[in-house]
Amino acid sequence: MDVASVCVVGACGFAGMELCRLVLGHPGMELRMATDRKAAGTRLADVRPAFEGATDIVLSQPDPELIAGSCALAFLAVPHTASLSLTPRLLELGVSVVDLSADFRLRDPATYEAWYGTPHTSTDLLHEAVYGLPELNRAGLQGLAARRADGEPVLVAAPGCYPTATALAAMPALESGIATGDLVISDAISGVSGAGRAATERTHFCHANESVEAYGVAKHRHTPEMEQTLSDVAGRPMGVVFTPHLAPLTRGLLATVYLEAAEGVRPQDVQAAYERRYADEPLVSVLPAGRMPATASVAGGGRAQVGVALSMRRRPMIVASCAIDNLGKGAAAQAVQCANLVLGLPETEGIRAPAPLI
Amino acid sequence: MDVASVCVVGACGFAGMELCRLVLGHPGMELRMATDRKAAGTRLADVRPAFEGATDIVLSQPDPELIAGSCALAFLAVPHTASLSLTPRLLELGVSVVDLSADFRLRDPATYEAWYGTPHTSTDLLHEAVYGLPELNRAGLQGLAARRADGEPVLVAAPGCYPTATALAAMPALESGIATGDLVISDAISGVSGAGRAATERTHFCHANESVEAYGVAKHRHTPEMEQTLSDVAGRPMGVVFTPHLAPLTRGLLATVYLEAAEGVRPQDVQAAYERRYADEPLVSVLPAGRMPATASVAGGGRAQVGVALSMRRRPMIVASCAIDNLGKGAAAQAVQCANLVLGLPETEGIRAPAPLI
Amino acid sequence: MDVASVCVVGACGFAGMELCRLVLGHPGMELRMATDRKAAGTRLADVRPAFEGATDIVLSQPDPELIAGSCALAFLAVPHTASLSLTPRLLELGVSVVDLSADFRLRDPATYEAWYGTPHTSTDLLHEAVYGLPELNRAGLQGLAARRADGEPVLVAAPGCYPTATALAAMPALESGIATGDLVISDAISGVSGAGRAATERTHFCHANESVEAYGVAKHRHTPEMEQTLSDVAGRPMGVVFTPHLAPLTRGLLATVYLEAAEGVRPQDVQAAYERRYADEPLVSVLPAGRMPATASVAGGGRAQVGVALSMRRRPMIVASCAIDNLGKGAAAQAVQCANLVLGLPETEGIRAPAPLI
Amino acid sequence: MDVASVCVVGACGFAGMELCRLVLGHPGMELRMATDRKAAGTRLADVRPAFEGATDIVLSQPDPELIAGSCALAFLAVPHTASLSLTPRLLELGVSVVDLSADFRLRDPATYEAWYGTPHTSTDLLHEAVYGLPELNRAGLQGLAARRADGEPVLVAAPGCYPTATALAAMPALESGIATGDLVISDAISGVSGAGRAATERTHFCHANESVEAYGVAKHRHTPEMEQTLSDVAGRPMGVVFTPHLAPLTRGLLATVYLEAAEGVRPQDVQAAYERRYADEPLVSVLPAGRMPATASVAGGGRAQVGVALSMRRRPMIVASCAIDNLGKGAAAQAVQCANLVLGLPETEGIRAPAPLI
Repeated sequence: MDVASVCVVGACGFAGMELCRLVLGHPGMELRMATDRKAAGTRLADVRPAFEGATDIVLSQPDPELIAGSCALAFLAVPHTASLSLTPRLLELGVSVVDLSADFRLRDPATYEAWYGTPHTSTDLLHEAVYGLPELNRAGLQGLAARRADGEPVLVAAPGCYPTATALAAMPALESGIATGDLVISDAISGVSGAGRAATERTHFCHANESVEAYGVAKHRHTPEMEQTLSDVAGRPMGVVFTPHLAPLTRGLLATVYLEAAEGVRPQDVQAAYERRYADEPLVSVLPAGRMPATASVAGGGRAQVGVALSMRRRPMIVASCAIDNLGKGAAAQAVQCANLVLGLPETEGIRAPAPLI
Repeated sequence: MDVASVCVVGACGFAGMELCRLVLGHPGMELRMATDRKAAGTRLADVRPAFEGATDIVLSQPDPELIAGSCALAFLAVPHTASLSLTPRLLELGVSVVDLSADFRLRDPATYEAWYGTPHTSTDLLHEAVYGLPELNRAGLQGLAARRADGEPVLVAAPGCYPTATALAAMPALESGIATGDLVISDAISGVSGAGRAATERTHFCHANESVEAYGVAKHRHTPEMEQTLSDVAGRPMGVVFTPHLAPLTRGLLATVYLEAAEGVRPQDVQAAYERRYADEPLVSVLPAGRMPATASVAGGGRAQVGVALSMRRRPMIVASCAIDNLGKGAAAQAVQCANLVLGLPETEGIRAPAPLI
Repeated sequence: MDVASVCVVGACGFAGMELCRLVLGHPGMELRMATDRKAAGTRLADVRPAFEGATDIVLSQPDPELIAGSCALAFLAVPHTASLSLTPRLLELGVSVVDLSADFRLRDPATYEAWYGTPHTSTDLLHEAVYGLPELNRAGLQGLAARRADGEPVLVAAPGCYPTATALAAMPALESGIATGDLVISDAISGVSGAGRAATERTHFCHANESVEAYGVAKHRHTPEMEQTLSDVAGRPMGVVFTPHLAPLTRGLLATVYLEAAEGVRPQDVQAAYERRYADEPLVSVLPAGRMPATASVAGGGRAQVGVALSMRRRPMIVASCAIDNLGKGAAAQAVQCANLVLGLPETEGIRAPAPLI
Repeated sequence: MDVASVCVVGACGFAGMELCRLVLGHPGMELRMATDRKAAGTRLADVRPAFEGATDIVLSQPDPELIAGSCALAFLAVPHTASLSLTPRLLELGVSVVDLSADFRLRDPATYEAWYGTPHTSTDLLHEAVYGLPELNRAGLQGLAARRADGEPVLVAAPGCYPTATALAAMPALESGIATGDLVISDAISGVSGAGRAATERTHFCHANESVEAYGVAKHRHTPEMEQTLSDVAGRPMGVVFTPHLAPLTRGLLATVYLEAAEGVRPQDVQAAYERRYADEPLVSVLPAGRMPATASVAGGGRAQVGVALSMRRRPMIVASCAIDNLGKGAAAQAVQCANLVLGLPETEGIRAPAPLI
């Protein structure tokens, strides 16, 4: 296997750390650089003791020229807007980019501006970026591999954690036509690492521990990303009512979605539609009828598990639940999955191990 | 204040322990008896060390004659069906009952049999029982106080934890007419104490910790209780799509409900309807617009907090979230609230303290 | 019961919140003022939603004149050094003080300066302050009640959380003479609320959760306070090797202490010495031989539980374990216990309820 | 790399699951069999959903003939005494054994009988077994590799979790002579997975969560194993005062040890002794002076981190803290490390990745 030299930009955030960990264990990648603005010059292991004994890499500044000097591909684990300036420069310098920020996910720059409160300054790249949900978009990602083989740097916009779980939970119903209507309710629960590394009142242990709460109700920024994906899938404009919750766990994300079922749909039809849809997917499993997934079964890994049921109270409703690790399939592992496709490596290389958590 | 002598039946379960704790601190009640079949003869504090130093009460067998010999009121914190035989006997013997089991909540015995898999053997008492949700049924509970003052023993069927939170979250929207449709989605998250004291694979720390999962989807037994209450409130038959989740906390329950909004309803209308509905309620607070409740704010206490928002994606949907302690307002504290009303005591006596948890 | 009007200074910190909660439920105290420098002017319930529905008090600035205008007693839940200026002024103005900071705990100002890095600027008050561990110092605290009854404001220096648990675990062995030597090892584990309300890397949920670590080894500031108390108790100079650990819980503190046993001491002697020592203590329980306390049994309350064993590997060692709530018996509840004594109220008023946590 | 076919006996326990996970990701091992008495005949992934998508292996009965038919090496993740019968038979059949039970750890059968309450029935194998702590016993384990290369099946007795952490924390001090005395205090904290998979009152989420407690004080069965190792290391008979605690985390173990320091030892001597001792160890890191390890830094992985300090209160005491994952370096990963040595594979193959937990 050829070994690609990669850079993790934003290595000290949660997604960045997870990327470093995955790249260090990946036989087809080498962690050549890891950057952090504040900690540049320090050993990664001195800042994040989990790396003690595993790597002696010293953190760098996220300087595009430096990255281009030694890396073929960069993972950007940066806050939104940071990628707007970094990505164009890296592509110019010939570095392929897997961007974990929100900056290149939405095709419509007006939608970006409406939800992120800032104009999109790299609109020309929006049609270049391929949305990195392999279960929806594998052909597109493989197309990037071909272009990259011709020497062209490419850009993947890796999905957000909530949109990943919501899409995986709702896609089979919308694609197969067993769901009707123009609205999907996504009620999701995330571990606290989803709130990021900043120490705030909300992320204080004593606030988050032993508590559950909803936040960002009816206004969370992942909403338009979900609507874009589900509209693509359904072939009609879809709205999403999205309610994220915070629960006292570090890693893990569960999205439970509700869709109106088409007339006459039976429980076995729903189960069959879901099993058929993911039969060949290497990282998505559909649980047997009657079982629902637990996030612990996928935490620390790159897999997703989906369960589905049909409610028959008054009107039939499809209830599907998808469990992922918000930092794994919801961020770093999915970014590696995309990078594998772009680099022509086996799709699950470095991310196929079962969850290390109980 | 007159002091009522009470008995807690099932004192070693989670709700029973919480009842003992509340009664011990209640100036209008005396914990005369506490029963547990298996541990009868042992000091409560030897079985549950949290009571060490606070009471020397010795556990008894749940014998109705014994209870009637010294107690005016019994709280039944027993599994469903156990109350079917115990309650009639206690009433005969002149003991008023606040029943925390499901046995007298559903008015229709056929519905009981369909969901609990056993015929209802005390159907004559079903029309005697008053459903113990004071925010819905205060007059009915006060009516019991009058009857009790005339020497008649009375029966309160205390609500389940999920139905309590779902009702408090949905009632203002249904009563005020700002919600339409015949379906309410209730997506709820409970702490593990809701699964009871039995040591099972599901309640093992290493299973529940660091994980979130849905369970009982489309078939949870609290569904008909919610439908009965919400149909009463709406004045039309309502269905409930109910999805409970388990999250890694001990106490706390959050129900997030989704209802179709009537044409033209604005966010401020929704907020106003909720604030108006609970303006005079001593134990339910509506948070200011834009804020949602956290279970930690009510854990360990008898209060509920509610937040509400209006989603405007395609079709307007009301999203309301209610936080309670599943063992407090969802069980023991609400049972005490009912007992206060039945005994003619101030409604919030013994349960008005703020949550002791951070 | 006469009702004393009190002020909680530092009401938005963890100990301050717990004090407000206890005072609100205390029949002999009225929460007349609650202060917080940053949030003054705001309702306490708006800053700490656990108080929603329980109090409408508005936070004030910690102004001594203002406090003296309406309060007979002030609890100071402030960082060390803040009390050095506040306490003398409050006493001058006639307000009695229960100080939860470290400022008046150490009798020797040189020790204070050595460990806190700042000179002690109110040394004249050091001999006025009574160290507020009622199990050690009840007569002293009752003496304050007499002076206060004569119109004199008084000062209690409430102990730290680790010193409380360490003292309760070690006192019976040292006082009874079954322990020898000049060294006590105290290996303690605290919940994260002990690290305070500041949002830091250490208190981030994702750092503290699923982890245990030692900190401040061989240099924690509670060391001289423990040495002062244990030397008093033993009647000879004692050293303390103190290792605090942080564990992923919100409230709770366990100190396990190790002392060399005197020649010939048998397990039953050790058990008897402990039981005898605490036989009349209202808030300290000694568990039966062979059992050790769990912090959950005392969390949220004002009690302590102690267990003890004798190790016979090579040399006999006494191993005793004391469980408290770091915010309860380790801070707020103990401060209320002291205030009860100072005010001439029943010692356990407002803090005798069993732990509300499971 | 040659691929060894291995069997995991007891695959559904915590250590067994972790072994399966590690073997599945190990380039030099193939998981040919996984056994569980109760679940034989079922897919591992149906019993443990974390394996869904990662393996379709079906669980077998732990039948030695069956194992010998296809496997060169067996990991025994079984309760003590189960290995007494299984191990001799496997060796007879030519299968090498890495035994994670306690059955072959203690060299003295009388000690085994005294602590485990049952006679040792395979005493002839006691001198064959090599104690599998590579940091202490690497040459012995490499000697097994030579014998195995000659066709002889070999036996490794993998250490317990507490003895591993205690030995790693105390060894440098005892070996280097900076510690004196005949007693080591080991005060340790374990995650709940250390209590095993059985659903008991103690492992119930609501018991373990938000609580810390000591257990097995002065009588835990790991005591003689620690004494054997530390006596070997010190060259004189050592006693161990051992206090294990349970804390609310799933994985992770911290042992803090206390040893009397030799006259004149300075802090820098202690730090140097520890750094020197582990300078060449691939899986043990000594943290810089002043820092102590957190279990999260090693959870999910095979590494250990050690920190050390010198207390100077009255008499100098060495305080050292070692963090491991009780299921990793304390069980499964260490067993794989031993198997690597026995099989002639690189020592850290399959276990060198950094901790996947934050």
